[in-house]
Amino acid sequence: MKENPHLIIFNENKDTRGCLVAIEGGNNIPFEIARVYYIYNTPQNIERGFHAHRNLMQVLIAVNGIIEVTCEYHGQKSFYLLDSPKKGLLLSGLVWRTMKFVSDDSILMVLADTYYDESDYVRNYNDFITLEQNFLSGFLHERA
Amino acid sequence: MKENPHLIIFNENKDTRGCLVAIEGGNNIPFEIARVYYIYNTPQNIERGFHAHRNLMQVLIAVNGIIEVTCEYHGQKSFYLLDSPKKGLLLSGLVWRTMKFVSDDSILMVLADTYYDESDYVRNYNDFITLEQNFLSGFLHERA
Repeated sequence: MKENPHLIIFNENKDTRGCLVAIEGGNNIPFEIARVYYIYNTPQNIERGFHAHRNLMQVLIAVNGIIEVTCEYHGQKSFYLLDSPKKGLLLSGLVWRTMKFVSDDSILMVLADTYYDESDYVRNYNDFITLEQNFLSGFLHERA
Repeated sequence: MKENPHLIIFNENKDTRGCLVAIEGGNNIPFEIARVYYIYNTPQNIERGFHAHRNLMQVLIAVNGIIEVTCEYHGQKSFYLLDSPKKGLLLSGLVWRTMKFVSDDSILMVLADTYYDESDYVRNYNDFITLEQNFLSGFLHERA
């Protein structure tokens, strides 16, 4: 598997009428698109997220404005600046994420591989750390 | 079948952190989402579209700005003002459409039920009229 999170740069079709980016489930992203949601009218510098998912795969795109995404996965923190509609950030499963909507015109679009499922959310950070440790100890056990 | 085109008003989840609209394929729109594309950086008042599709189903959403959509279907012209991310315009098949990007910050997001397929496009208006007439004469023949 590729690194997680993984930044995807989409092709942009640009002409005098504007720019177009197209995303096809299973084609230029690695899953079928079950759900699309978008977040808008956010106060400047508001932070959202503060959760992980057990299994969900998502691609995050700032279709307008600038969004800073901070991720934690397997003990590694990483940071992504989504400042172009061409950039998609692929998150798979157990990634703790926060999204800062830097400009008040920022719009976050998210493509997801399943419908909304509250049981897939990990909303408590300590639970996230426990799940990570369980995963890593299982992984080390398998490799021993 | 419902009217074509058909305007859908999506639920908006709103709180102090902003607004969220979620669309689930086969749930609050009548098809699975194969393709998502978005158009941005358009000059003010540019018009795009000028085509129909043989079979494609799409939902058009102005996630930012204001987009005027003019449609022609079965000899009827109709007009829709997409001025809210809550509004989705469902187009099924043989609808001739033009989209005017009224503000230069307008962003059109489109959800579609199949991958890109050039053979599904009808780009010539006279061909569109011929296809409409063939459809309507077949329909009248069946009813006779």
